[in-house]
Amino acid sequence: MTDYNVAIMGATGAVGQVLLEILAERDFPVGELRLLASARSAGRAIPFNGSSIQVQELGEDSFAGVDIVLASAGGSLSKQFNPHAVAAGAVVVDNTSAYRMDPDVPLVVPEINPEDLAAHNGIIANPNCSTIIMDVAVWPLYQRRQVKRIVVSTYQAVSGAGARAMQELEAQTQQVLAGQEAEPAEFPHPIAFNLFSHDSAVGPEGYCEEELKMVRETRKMFHDDALQISATTIRVPVLRAHSEAINVEFAEPFPAAEAEAILAQAEGVRIVNDPAQNYFPMPIEASGCDEVLVGRIRQDISRPEGTGLDLWVSGDQLRKGAALNAVQIAEELIARKLL
Amino acid sequence: MTDYNVAIMGATGAVGQVLLEILAERDFPVGELRLLASARSAGRAIPFNGSSIQVQELGEDSFAGVDIVLASAGGSLSKQFNPHAVAAGAVVVDNTSAYRMDPDVPLVVPEINPEDLAAHNGIIANPNCSTIIMDVAVWPLYQRRQVKRIVVSTYQAVSGAGARAMQELEAQTQQVLAGQEAEPAEFPHPIAFNLFSHDSAVGPEGYCEEELKMVRETRKMFHDDALQISATTIRVPVLRAHSEAINVEFAEPFPAAEAEAILAQAEGVRIVNDPAQNYFPMPIEASGCDEVLVGRIRQDISRPEGTGLDLWVSGDQLRKGAALNAVQIAEELIARKLL
Repeated sequence: MTDYNVAIMGATGAVGQVLLEILAERDFPVGELRLLASARSAGRAIPFNGSSIQVQELGEDSFAGVDIVLASAGGSLSKQFNPHAVAAGAVVVDNTSAYRMDPDVPLVVPEINPEDLAAHNGIIANPNCSTIIMDVAVWPLYQRRQVKRIVVSTYQAVSGAGARAMQELEAQTQQVLAGQEAEPAEFPHPIAFNLFSHDSAVGPEGYCEEELKMVRETRKMFHDDALQISATTIRVPVLRAHSEAINVEFAEPFPAAEAEAILAQAEGVRIVNDPAQNYFPMPIEASGCDEVLVGRIRQDISRPEGTGLDLWVSGDQLRKGAALNAVQIAEELIARKLL
Repeated sequence: MTDYNVAIMGATGAVGQVLLEILAERDFPVGELRLLASARSAGRAIPFNGSSIQVQELGEDSFAGVDIVLASAGGSLSKQFNPHAVAAGAVVVDNTSAYRMDPDVPLVVPEINPEDLAAHNGIIANPNCSTIIMDVAVWPLYQRRQVKRIVVSTYQAVSGAGARAMQELEAQTQQVLAGQEAEPAEFPHPIAFNLFSHDSAVGPEGYCEEELKMVRETRKMFHDDALQISATTIRVPVLRAHSEAINVEFAEPFPAAEAEAILAQAEGVRIVNDPAQNYFPMPIEASGCDEVLVGRIRQDISRPEGTGLDLWVSGDQLRKGAALNAVQIAEELIARKLL
């Protein structure tokens, strides 16, 4: 079996750390592993698969001999360094938002549109975390009946804002329990025992960037510009799994029992749906899982004609929402001989 | 000005305590104040308006001379004792779910349907907290254009499950931060850094009781059985204000700017809507407020014909969601000479 030289851009961040875990867990055929980060982290030793790897400073010359770059250092660094990686012959799986809507860059969730990988020009984009978690649950249903419209509300963990945001939630909660004032730093508002509208920029239509990502990226992956989506994205005091209440309107009736049977067979989905025990997806249980947990699968009572379904899902933001999906893309590139 | 003898059933609970605060704050014309609770709490002294009142054990003979009962001791105690209160000549404002759907009992939010009070037979029901907070924001819009359908997702504070649930959130969060296992008692699942589907019983259609309350109670107050609503109710690790993402479909186009102007004038509503600063309703700011905070008022982009609006609201569960609405009902009964 061939081994591949892998570089991780942003190796010391929250997603970078989970990328390392997942490469090891899945026995990814890693030859050399190059850990790239800012000058500040260079020289730090990071354990991987029983050995220890020194972090190197990210530079234009970091990519010689690299086959696959997993880029998770932020959009502006991707814009700056990905062209050098591609010029050096590597394929970049980019976990930032920099290239997602670029028509020359495939945007891929392997359970949804792996065939789009074939058109890559050296860069493949990994979708937004909230988008991935919604779409893994909606896609199996979409394949059976035309989806006309989705109304989704998110309950997003702080991990989406990075490792420091996770520390902020814990430290600030400790402060508030001690009777002290919350002092936001990573977030614009207190997060301890609070929640707020996602703090990405709000556009002229009143939707924030996070919400528009869910709309645009879903349309791109489903190859369906007619798909209508309204999203409300909310940050909640949860560490690392996003939950979402998803209302889906179909062009024809879709019985809930059929939907549950389809989802039970669907790749990347685990059904957690026990109404008698009031046991449904929860972020603390989704954390560490590869699958998106799906429950509360029910016929939307506000559409008596049977054309609506409601779902409640939780998925690990750092795994399927980011690092796992990126590694799955790399695996799919190998399987399809697209490297 | 006439004074009224007031009894509080459940005086030592989370809502009971806020009832006392609100009666004092609003200078409610209280003559005698009788604090009723279980035998366990009897004898306890509770401060009110500079004096101290001893809690009495709730009994069938507790209501002699009482004009108004504010009942917040749970549905089964209301069923048991309200008839005795009514027989003694009192009017009961009932904050439990026991009477809400009784066709002989008005269900009232004073900003919405105060005229329904006239038909009372001794008992008036206070709606569910999630219902009140949604309907205060939706009603002003409903009056201008026919509402066809609502899709709502809630982010519900633990106060709705009582004072012990509030203590559980704080104590359990402390435990989890100290590296200990969460030990749920009031809730079926851990609430620290977690969230879960509201733990009321799930019916055959897959909706839990809390969700069906939002449907049925809204229809009753709006006098509109054709109004379609799908709700997903979620408990979040927040202390005492509920938030809700509300998607409303109208029979005709409804411009967002017009909706914001209407809501800015609406009783019981405070607009918190500053997209440039990413500043919108938050539960920590709704806590202690009488108004429901409303923001993210935007045209639903998934309905290009302009017939959809999205709102994001937060309201104090203990105040407008319970105690304040009950006291406002009592004030309205006095103003309308219905006592």
